[in-house]
Amino acid sequence: MQCRAMQNQRAGRRSAKAAALQGVARMHIGGRVFASPVFGGRKAARAASVASRATSVKVNATATIEKPAGPTATASSGGAGTRVMIIGGDGYCGWATALHLSARGYEVCIVDNLCRRQFDLTLGLDTLTPIATIHDRVRKWAEVSGKYISLQIGDICDWEFLSQAFTSFQPDHVVHFGEQRSAPYSMIDRQKAVFTQTNNVVGTLNVLFAIKELKPDCHLVKLGTMGEYGTPNIDIEEGYLTVTHNGRTDTLPYPKQGNSFYHLSKIHDSTNMLFTCKAWKVAATDLNQGVVYGVRTEETMADPLLINRYDYDGIFGTALNRFVVQAAVGHPLTVYGKGGQTRGFLDIRDTVRCIQIAVDNPAARGEMRVYNQFTEQFSVNQLAEIVGREGRKLGLDVVVQNVPNPRVEAEEHYYNAKHTKLVELGLQPHLLADSMIDSLLEFAVQYRDRVRMELIKPAVDWRKTGVKVNTMGAAVAK
Amino acid sequence: MQCRAMQNQRAGRRSAKAAALQGVARMHIGGRVFASPVFGGRKAARAASVASRATSVKVNATATIEKPAGPTATASSGGAGTRVMIIGGDGYCGWATALHLSARGYEVCIVDNLCRRQFDLTLGLDTLTPIATIHDRVRKWAEVSGKYISLQIGDICDWEFLSQAFTSFQPDHVVHFGEQRSAPYSMIDRQKAVFTQTNNVVGTLNVLFAIKELKPDCHLVKLGTMGEYGTPNIDIEEGYLTVTHNGRTDTLPYPKQGNSFYHLSKIHDSTNMLFTCKAWKVAATDLNQGVVYGVRTEETMADPLLINRYDYDGIFGTALNRFVVQAAVGHPLTVYGKGGQTRGFLDIRDTVRCIQIAVDNPAARGEMRVYNQFTEQFSVNQLAEIVGREGRKLGLDVVVQNVPNPRVEAEEHYYNAKHTKLVELGLQPHLLADSMIDSLLEFAVQYRDRVRMELIKPAVDWRKTGVKVNTMGAAVAK
Repeated sequence: MQCRAMQNQRAGRRSAKAAALQGVARMHIGGRVFASPVFGGRKAARAASVASRATSVKVNATATIEKPAGPTATASSGGAGTRVMIIGGDGYCGWATALHLSARGYEVCIVDNLCRRQFDLTLGLDTLTPIATIHDRVRKWAEVSGKYISLQIGDICDWEFLSQAFTSFQPDHVVHFGEQRSAPYSMIDRQKAVFTQTNNVVGTLNVLFAIKELKPDCHLVKLGTMGEYGTPNIDIEEGYLTVTHNGRTDTLPYPKQGNSFYHLSKIHDSTNMLFTCKAWKVAATDLNQGVVYGVRTEETMADPLLINRYDYDGIFGTALNRFVVQAAVGHPLTVYGKGGQTRGFLDIRDTVRCIQIAVDNPAARGEMRVYNQFTEQFSVNQLAEIVGREGRKLGLDVVVQNVPNPRVEAEEHYYNAKHTKLVELGLQPHLLADSMIDSLLEFAVQYRDRVRMELIKPAVDWRKTGVKVNTMGAAVAK
Repeated sequence: MQCRAMQNQRAGRRSAKAAALQGVARMHIGGRVFASPVFGGRKAARAASVASRATSVKVNATATIEKPAGPTATASSGGAGTRVMIIGGDGYCGWATALHLSARGYEVCIVDNLCRRQFDLTLGLDTLTPIATIHDRVRKWAEVSGKYISLQIGDICDWEFLSQAFTSFQPDHVVHFGEQRSAPYSMIDRQKAVFTQTNNVVGTLNVLFAIKELKPDCHLVKLGTMGEYGTPNIDIEEGYLTVTHNGRTDTLPYPKQGNSFYHLSKIHDSTNMLFTCKAWKVAATDLNQGVVYGVRTEETMADPLLINRYDYDGIFGTALNRFVVQAAVGHPLTVYGKGGQTRGFLDIRDTVRCIQIAVDNPAARGEMRVYNQFTEQFSVNQLAEIVGREGRKLGLDVVVQNVPNPRVEAEEHYYNAKHTKLVELGLQPHLLADSMIDSLLEFAVQYRDRVRMELIKPAVDWRKTGVKVNTMGAAVAK
């Protein structure tokens, strides 16, 4: 797979470079001049198609690829000069966010230790899409947009590295995606549970110390997860709950109940952050994000070398992305247990917009602001129904298979989570309409020759998490 | 200080050995025969007096030392043969608990990496009392009581060590005191904040994995802290809060707000434990303990080599222990800020009894039971008043000094924490009556020549916690 991915990257690089060079023009955006591709999106789509053909990826004849409008179509001047450090900027949400902000005039620095790619190497997984190296990504982005994204490769758990990255970049905002973000990964074995909690908690502690000591007015935008709340039998509020008890009232942190060592690590982060906001007057926004779906943003579709990762495997693939790939390759949609598990979901185009909103409307010093970052609630069964219906319209044979739930979680429960604050600040959600599923399905069909069937099934059983080191080699070898 | 402590130990060893050898007899307890000192307590007190004189410790002429009743006076058959692993069994609460349970027929294994002693070495601190090495302690205990406590020296963050300790001892209960337990220590610098959270969280995770994989029916008794709750404006319940919100009701983990990286680490532990109780059916009791005071338990007073540690310094000394020493040496009682900070307190004789109650009444598999382990609430000002009044009765010149609060915490607040469950299970509290303060004061006066004045003052400022490594050397050198 490594070789094929590299071939794809090289092919894409050659063809996309030609496309990009033909279509670059000068534009004024927000009072600043920068180079930008004219109709770059369409040319990039063509280049992607070339890249796909070069490695025998067949595009289904019935699919029509969505035409992205190009990275500058909705650029605003909001970010001119604002310095944003994006920790985890090589990941799924981080990369899309880095380009979104860079396109809009923010000065972006990506900090990443590339551990997400290392997880894939170690576990034998791969993204559906052939992603370029981070170095090629930022080089290509400079070509395509005329924007320079600076790059600091290193581990935020290493204080020496983080402090130097902070001192040299002097961020106004730190957007912190840099955590191990898979629940199943955290449940593979004891080592990975300990790694997940140590990596996430220590990384965030270091970021908090960096802000306090090196840039006290820097605003922290931290990615939490809706999974911190669990599935309580009462409405989920945005971070805090006002409680009246025995005749007295207080507003307290919303009670948290995580369902994996990963989710728990983000609860720990939130708890630590709240303290530093009080004790050190840190300004923080905690974004409890729902399950993200989709792969296209304007910027990541502007060139094949900018394409985002798309995970469908049993460890890093989230429910909707996985269902879509399963439908595309004729694999039954694997619904865990009864399928009544209800969660919040959002389009990756809303993720990047939410981050921008959080940056443009920073928390005050000493404030820990919490937003629930999702746009719609669905049960797993509802997702499977939607994907099945739309897949059949495209001539795909979609069946649903209820498999034993590898997780320990409520499969039928009340779920009503508030998510109004980001909308009040201007978020206009992309809803999961049928058309969205269409384009996602077409995308999955486009790349379906890259799908490795053995990666799709549930890979980690919550009840069997043990102390024996598990490299998942057996699953991949099947 | 090292040399003086060792002289004390050697002197104590010689004299106590003679005392112990004279007074050993055979007793039947719980159907089992074991050797026990007859009137050991009184002889031991005499031996301690010898040891004190040998290193020029002057006992105030007005003080009368409390005569402990000897380790077997209240021995019960409750523990016969029950295997209890005590992690952190060389620490303040851990050592007293180990002896308490061993005296009562439980099979005790102490697991400790001796990091508490290493903290003192590193920071230049010392216990008021000259404590023996853990090896001498358990040897002496065997002489005094005829009971064998097994010893595993190692770090529970090291899985290889912990798994072997578990496999060899096969505990029925694990009592987990083995954490960095000082709020100021966790606020010294970034390294110690990260150490505290990593050490505590990873250690507890390893214990949870050990139970799941190696001894699934082993009951975990975990020491939490009342500080996990913070100071909410509503009543504090025991672990859980039933909330009615928008017409629906659920019982949820009580919302937590810690005020130091140490307190936060214990919140993280509780959050992790709750998950493993659900996912793996671990049986756990979380004891949210208040501030412990006192140094005497029957067993630790039975011989000078068994004496417990007594911390009065600005980092490990808790409020009441510190006030008592300050009164004994004529140092003003250092009240932080306004002194309205109210907390739960308990006598160490109740700590050891609470642990026994938790062991004797284990949680069910899958249950995380939470008890608030304290007996009385006091504000810091109330403690200072009591110590001042009792000190003056003994002829001590006690003044109170309000010093700038080095912590970030509410100094005037509502505080009403429930603590009925342990009483319902049979706890008969030792209340902080005047007589208790008397005996504590007399004890402090006995050892006052060992007091190092430079260690008493507040050593760590919450607002100044930084990234520069702070060994506290400057404070000690003054």
